[in-house]
Amino acid sequence: MGDEVVLLDFGLSMFCIRVKIALAEKGVKYEMKEEDLVNTKSPLLLQSNPVHKKVPVLLHNGKPISESLIILEYIDEFWKDKAPLLPIDPYHRSQARFWADFVDNKVHEVAKKIWTGKVDEHEAEKKELIENLKQLEEALGDKPYFGGETFGFVDIALIPFYKWFSTYEKVGKFKLDYPKLVVWANRCFERESVSQFISDEKDVYDFVLSHRKRLGVD
Amino acid sequence: MGDEVVLLDFGLSMFCIRVKIALAEKGVKYEMKEEDLVNTKSPLLLQSNPVHKKVPVLLHNGKPISESLIILEYIDEFWKDKAPLLPIDPYHRSQARFWADFVDNKVHEVAKKIWTGKVDEHEAEKKELIENLKQLEEALGDKPYFGGETFGFVDIALIPFYKWFSTYEKVGKFKLDYPKLVVWANRCFERESVSQFISDEKDVYDFVLSHRKRLGVD
Repeated sequence: MGDEVVLLDFGLSMFCIRVKIALAEKGVKYEMKEEDLVNTKSPLLLQSNPVHKKVPVLLHNGKPISESLIILEYIDEFWKDKAPLLPIDPYHRSQARFWADFVDNKVHEVAKKIWTGKVDEHEAEKKELIENLKQLEEALGDKPYFGGETFGFVDIALIPFYKWFSTYEKVGKFKLDYPKLVVWANRCFERESVSQFISDEKDVYDFVLSHRKRLGVD
Repeated sequence: MGDEVVLLDFGLSMFCIRVKIALAEKGVKYEMKEEDLVNTKSPLLLQSNPVHKKVPVLLHNGKPISESLIILEYIDEFWKDKAPLLPIDPYHRSQARFWADFVDNKVHEVAKKIWTGKVDEHEAEKKELIENLKQLEEALGDKPYFGGETFGFVDIALIPFYKWFSTYEKVGKFKLDYPKLVVWANRCFERESVSQFISDEKDVYDFVLSHRKRLGVD
């Protein structure tokens, strides 16, 4: 093929983990370049993603692609012969995109307010997050994966966040309830493509604590 | 075809206008059901989009699809034989998705803080919006449309917001500068698919003023 694939990465980033899982599912070889987000962003990152200046960035033969869900779609479209991530049917595709977007806007965005905020603020967000995980469990239903029988787009979008749930609880001092997601997550972790990249819960917690110190919220 | 297509609509919604332009480009016939968002949402809306409870919702043979950019992708995939909205090449598709997402997160989200907030707050957002329109102009470059020679995904994503720019300025008491977008917008307005749905600037301004009264920010 002669494809040169480079990923600008940050190990604990849920968004980067999505891309690594997708590339592993497709069997794409690539070079990983770890970014030092806490101190200095590399010239390559600033030049490749001048708009958001964020990882992940996938460089494919030098051409940069940003935003993790957009990268997943790209990976699925370019390496289309192996391990389809999105279903074929347009309606099912729309539903997969809907729930992946839900993870960004209704899990990550809501949870971030909790883990970057003061402990006793954001009570509304805690209630909302509890409710949003319930809605995800309803969307999963009794299927092994979000898309049905096979691991795919929504699973990849959500699974990196799973290891953050306990940190949300510890930092926010509240309790989430997601029994169906536990079973689903353990099923996902059986895949080498997932288990090799997924974060350790303690690493996530330590990262968030040091982030909160930098923010001065504790 | 025998397809039953229904759009849950709100005339001034930029997100609904996107969907109407896309359906017009594809030549799809549909029934429009206007929602009364200010007073009571219809049972059909609440049932079709229980997660966000927002328009637009496209009901295709009874199956609901929500979130305007996801609906555009669905329309492009289902009615694929006419007027492609996204380019064919995976990289170009990724760039179109990137800039459409930019419109949502870097134009709408930023501007909304201005037009729903107090006049003298959100100075940072005003600076950011000026900068973000510049970035859109750079992305457009000297091309007739964002995707190149043909009207497409990013054009549809952005054009409904164009008629809001003067309201952003009047409400925020600041000045935007977008000479290239003026030329591009006038080109878009030559299309029947656009001109028949695009809002009147005064209607937008009046809507925002009455919304601000309800919010109690004026």
